[in-house]
Amino acid sequence: MTYAMIGTWAMALSGVQRAAATLAADGTAGDAVETAIQVIEDDPSLTSVGYGGLPNEQGMVQLDGAYMNGDNFQIGAVAGVEDVASPIALARLLAKERVNNFLVGTGAEAYADQHGLARKNMLTSGAKTAWQKRQVEVGQGGRLTPYDGHDTVGMIALDARGHIRVGTSTSGLFMKHAGRVGDSPQPGNGFYADSAVGAAAATGLGEDLMKRPLCFEIVSLMAQGMPVQEAMDKAVYTFIDQLQARNGAVGEFSYIALDHQGNFGVATNVEFQYAVFSDRVAPRLYLAMPGNDHHVTITPA
Amino acid sequence: MTYAMIGTWAMALSGVQRAAATLAADGTAGDAVETAIQVIEDDPSLTSVGYGGLPNEQGMVQLDGAYMNGDNFQIGAVAGVEDVASPIALARLLAKERVNNFLVGTGAEAYADQHGLARKNMLTSGAKTAWQKRQVEVGQGGRLTPYDGHDTVGMIALDARGHIRVGTSTSGLFMKHAGRVGDSPQPGNGFYADSAVGAAAATGLGEDLMKRPLCFEIVSLMAQGMPVQEAMDKAVYTFIDQLQARNGAVGEFSYIALDHQGNFGVATNVEFQYAVFSDRVAPRLYLAMPGNDHHVTITPA
Repeated sequence: MTYAMIGTWAMALSGVQRAAATLAADGTAGDAVETAIQVIEDDPSLTSVGYGGLPNEQGMVQLDGAYMNGDNFQIGAVAGVEDVASPIALARLLAKERVNNFLVGTGAEAYADQHGLARKNMLTSGAKTAWQKRQVEVGQGGRLTPYDGHDTVGMIALDARGHIRVGTSTSGLFMKHAGRVGDSPQPGNGFYADSAVGAAAATGLGEDLMKRPLCFEIVSLMAQGMPVQEAMDKAVYTFIDQLQARNGAVGEFSYIALDHQGNFGVATNVEFQYAVFSDRVAPRLYLAMPGNDHHVTITPA
Repeated sequence: MTYAMIGTWAMALSGVQRAAATLAADGTAGDAVETAIQVIEDDPSLTSVGYGGLPNEQGMVQLDGAYMNGDNFQIGAVAGVEDVASPIALARLLAKERVNNFLVGTGAEAYADQHGLARKNMLTSGAKTAWQKRQVEVGQGGRLTPYDGHDTVGMIALDARGHIRVGTSTSGLFMKHAGRVGDSPQPGNGFYADSAVGAAAATGLGEDLMKRPLCFEIVSLMAQGMPVQEAMDKAVYTFIDQLQARNGAVGEFSYIALDHQGNFGVATNVEFQYAVFSDRVAPRLYLAMPGNDHHVTITPA
């Protein structure tokens, strides 16, 4: 049976490697997504996700994440949560509720406490040092540039029983305004999944990614019969051109996708690495380079 | 020149009447949307929006809202904000930022304070009484049913210069979990606008509405040349059927839309009133009744 997984950025490789054993042993796509993302969340050396994520302008680490079940469209999402060890575990738990699926701030933290999820001070000394350094730079007249460290981890898994699940987890923009929410917890914008079709996940500048729900659009084009890579090229680059023309600026856009037959796709307007694994391919990294022709060039990384 | 406006529920009529003067006097779609929604936000007799909105399970009124500029796709959104007099004014202000466009909780409230927006205790004595009554019922073994008072006000305006703007404002589900976010602040799900095409807005059970970004899909189908009503019928009812089949339950779904030529559309699976106004039609209410044939029957209300 076909099973497959894809994740954003080079950091995804360690998560995909861990989850590969789950999928190969007839594990569920949901367990694969949660396991893979937790590896990233737990790694203090990664500055854009979970523990070690860079803080907001007030020095607080505020985390966003989401989980979607492609069988029944149930979604769980959190934004602006502090000191919750695994935002993806919290999002997955919320996806089982009939209502109150998307919680923010202290309300989300209370739910985590009520359900026995682990709490943890997510600010590492390294992240604190980076924040203090930036504060000094800003105090000396340096421009406040929040465009760093916004690398969301997105993971999509297809298991041998045909279930597709997608998850995201991020600390968002370094030096973001308190309470800022990006695309990652927003269905359609940061992620989308339909087990009969496929799934997509996004990373980049959330404020631009949320201007059109491209993850949904990619899945929708695939549902109309378009191959996964063609669907991504059409959805992503058409909108990048339109946004440039209509708003005069375009942030970083990178998307991964997986169809229900285990085929991968990627679209990006910046150099972008991603990790894949399937019953046919051992876990490995690829590098996608955007071309001028609205296609990417893909090479082993 | 053509100008037009549409808003959700009977409560929208007073807002549309106020904004009609703005649009007729060559005012902007943005001013029309903000003016119309503020009339609803300020009315203490309306229990699902702004002042007088019903509180969450902790007795706090937490408000969501959003604003989208159909020219450049800029979005402003807030969720879980307390004691901000006009969520739509806050969302519209956020839509002007390059980043940090979507803020939640205390971060959103801090932004409102920093920008001089009015604060106000949004809990009325009537809403407090309703909450206390529900607490007693729950304490006596009554089931906690949060399915009340989730009538979001959504407003779409097209001005004589061809600009389209959409806005939403809501207190969300009565007795919702603290920090719960619905569809209303989520682009694609709660609203979407493209001045070259049209716009749509949603109201109903947010947790189901966010399972597919139908507002975006409606606009996308219109961009492909489909008339507004046909686009709504195709997007909304197809998904309602799919959700019933895949998840076994479907909440309330109601959508309004307006195309760039001033034509209105509506789709709903419950009895639903909405208000319209244009250069050809004086402000008035209509009643949409869902049929079994995936079309609505529309009569003057």
